[in-house]
Amino acid sequence: MGKTIAEKILSRAAGKDVKAGDYVLADIDRAMVHDITAPLAIKAFREIAGESAKVWDPSRIIMAFDHQVPADSVTAAETHKMLRKFAEEQNILNYDVHEGIAHQIMVEKGHAKPGELIVGADSHTCMYGALGCFATGIGSTDMGFVFATGKLWFRVPETIRFEVNGKLEKHVYSKDIILKLIGMVGSDGANYKACEYAGDVVRKMSMAQRLTMSNMAIEMGGKAGIIEPDDETRKYLRAIGVEDFEEIHGDEDAEAKTVELDVTGMEPQVAKPHRVDNVVGVSEVKGTKVDQVFIGSCTNGRYEDLKIAAEFLKGEKIAKNVRLIVIPASRAEYRKALKDGLIDIFVEAGGIVEFPCCGPCMGGSFGLIASGEVSVSTSNRNFIGRQGSPEGKIYLVSPATAAATALYGEITDPREVR
Amino acid sequence: MGKTIAEKILSRAAGKDVKAGDYVLADIDRAMVHDITAPLAIKAFREIAGESAKVWDPSRIIMAFDHQVPADSVTAAETHKMLRKFAEEQNILNYDVHEGIAHQIMVEKGHAKPGELIVGADSHTCMYGALGCFATGIGSTDMGFVFATGKLWFRVPETIRFEVNGKLEKHVYSKDIILKLIGMVGSDGANYKACEYAGDVVRKMSMAQRLTMSNMAIEMGGKAGIIEPDDETRKYLRAIGVEDFEEIHGDEDAEAKTVELDVTGMEPQVAKPHRVDNVVGVSEVKGTKVDQVFIGSCTNGRYEDLKIAAEFLKGEKIAKNVRLIVIPASRAEYRKALKDGLIDIFVEAGGIVEFPCCGPCMGGSFGLIASGEVSVSTSNRNFIGRQGSPEGKIYLVSPATAAATALYGEITDPREVR
Repeated sequence: MGKTIAEKILSRAAGKDVKAGDYVLADIDRAMVHDITAPLAIKAFREIAGESAKVWDPSRIIMAFDHQVPADSVTAAETHKMLRKFAEEQNILNYDVHEGIAHQIMVEKGHAKPGELIVGADSHTCMYGALGCFATGIGSTDMGFVFATGKLWFRVPETIRFEVNGKLEKHVYSKDIILKLIGMVGSDGANYKACEYAGDVVRKMSMAQRLTMSNMAIEMGGKAGIIEPDDETRKYLRAIGVEDFEEIHGDEDAEAKTVELDVTGMEPQVAKPHRVDNVVGVSEVKGTKVDQVFIGSCTNGRYEDLKIAAEFLKGEKIAKNVRLIVIPASRAEYRKALKDGLIDIFVEAGGIVEFPCCGPCMGGSFGLIASGEVSVSTSNRNFIGRQGSPEGKIYLVSPATAAATALYGEITDPREVR
Repeated sequence: MGKTIAEKILSRAAGKDVKAGDYVLADIDRAMVHDITAPLAIKAFREIAGESAKVWDPSRIIMAFDHQVPADSVTAAETHKMLRKFAEEQNILNYDVHEGIAHQIMVEKGHAKPGELIVGADSHTCMYGALGCFATGIGSTDMGFVFATGKLWFRVPETIRFEVNGKLEKHVYSKDIILKLIGMVGSDGANYKACEYAGDVVRKMSMAQRLTMSNMAIEMGGKAGIIEPDDETRKYLRAIGVEDFEEIHGDEDAEAKTVELDVTGMEPQVAKPHRVDNVVGVSEVKGTKVDQVFIGSCTNGRYEDLKIAAEFLKGEKIAKNVRLIVIPASRAEYRKALKDGLIDIFVEAGGIVEFPCCGPCMGGSFGLIASGEVSVSTSNRNFIGRQGSPEGKIYLVSPATAAATALYGEITDPREVR
């Protein structure tokens, strides 16, 4: 019996042949922390290794501030200051407040490569799996252990392979597909499983589209969200200047549960409040009045997402009673959008464009909603209170559905707009 | 004996001939409230006029949200929601979170005209005086009275005329002049006086430069910061489509104290922590290490300010350990900067560009500094804690000095850069 890509990556990282169900102490290739989780990781690290200890390998740790930036309280400012000092003392690469969302930075700056084992102190670390690595979110205490030793225990996960085939309708994107899949299996349907996305539709996806799929693996409980490397992977890596990597591929006869989805005829999908697996076709909720539309986040804040949204908004004005907040995922994506005139389009349409950061996604910084308000968002979670008031409501959608919704001030099927 | 422009405007507004020292009940031409002060004004209004009362004249009240936008807490979101409802019920023009800083909106949308009496529930309302009106900040309780009656009591102020003449050095701007003047007379040197800016140097200033002067009249205690209308005023008003106004001019023989300033040879000025009147030439503080540079605010966030800053930053990179935050004053100014490539320049240089709002100026929203950190800012106040930690330090400068400082990470004389 062959092995899955997850089993092979963990075998390599553990230095021995392992299979699903085994417990392994694996070498970590790269570790990511951000402004919310780094302080806890550092605290744990110091408890484990001592106050004056050095991290195992500073070249393998990446820090970025994205949740509370620019510092939105004195507490946040003090935290940033402490983190800067730690990064400097430890010689850790710190992107600080300058480059955008940590997950996007990890991918676009070449910190995630095929075949690697990557941990991040944030649940959406699974996003990097789109590059063919095993990337997973871990707790801050575990991260302290990684800082100290460069290793972490894993149970090698079983794999669920999502085979996505068929013909995509107009204005149906990878976000709609991943929402559909999460709706199908439920929020615990892939608990501690390595999700693998495969099939013709996934193979034809751009890296931006793939990252959205992998990003949301955790929303069905997945430990990872892996897409095996192919030409698109290599093209993407070449474009960002990454050449030294070793692809790992799964065996055809590896044991994996398969979930099939034929997207032919599938309409744009919407995750209704307050669960990501509460998914329906847009036709079921269209007409719902909306107060705020958020286009951004690590899930859907890349240039390609903004381009899709801009095509709806170009030369148009958003509805009078809607606030539109657009936040590119990173400085690099922001610059692409700027050069291509997308920022102009959003601003002309009446939108508010902020500098790359998590923004309203995690409800702590800005763009929060009030009680009774409805947010339509391209981000990854619609839990109660996630974007502000616990009496607010969040609907998760693709950038196309979000932009169409901003135009009409109510949930709108993008296929009816253009 | 003739009358000052302040006496004449208050005479018109009171419907009788008044002079400095008189107490008058004057008709208000326009009233401004923002997201921080509007709730208190509404509370006072309801106490004065009753829960279901209507404001005296909704067409004369302007609302805008600029301090905590997009909503930076659930409390702010709930406040915004309440204010939207009030504005809608009362038929008040509400710019909501969409257009930027209230003061800039008041000016650029034609809500401040020569000869008018304007009150705003914010101390920097005096900015509109650059258009030849009498504009002054009032408390929220007074604003409740204005909402109810359209009138307010004033003591007609004496006038101090600041005569600014001479030849400006390269990279010395109106911000340097107003800082110099505040340093000369002290933070209480113009208490309850109508400040009038005059002289050749003021006459040659663009409206953007003038607005900076008027904005900071309050920093020497001034009740208003007036510049008599001239060709520049008319040109500006024509450009924004305002044609129905009646200029009021002061009499040559009006009684006013005069303060003279010859700017010839004057270097760029800096207000050191923690007082706006703690003003020195840049040469005295150059070399001071800086953590954050903020270019923006109602004082210096207009296109012209951004253009000056961009000339320093074009093709350059900011210093490694500095954070640069740029926030245009309004959507209109942002769009001008966007179309002219200034946003690109700031982003390429390593800056963070946020959507129009007050930003770090008032220390409540984002861009706050930590203890021991130094902020160099184009805004109008450097009080303890104004931009975050009470153990931080704020230096006030012009956009040119701010940009030069961002390049070197220490307070820098812009004349030594280019």
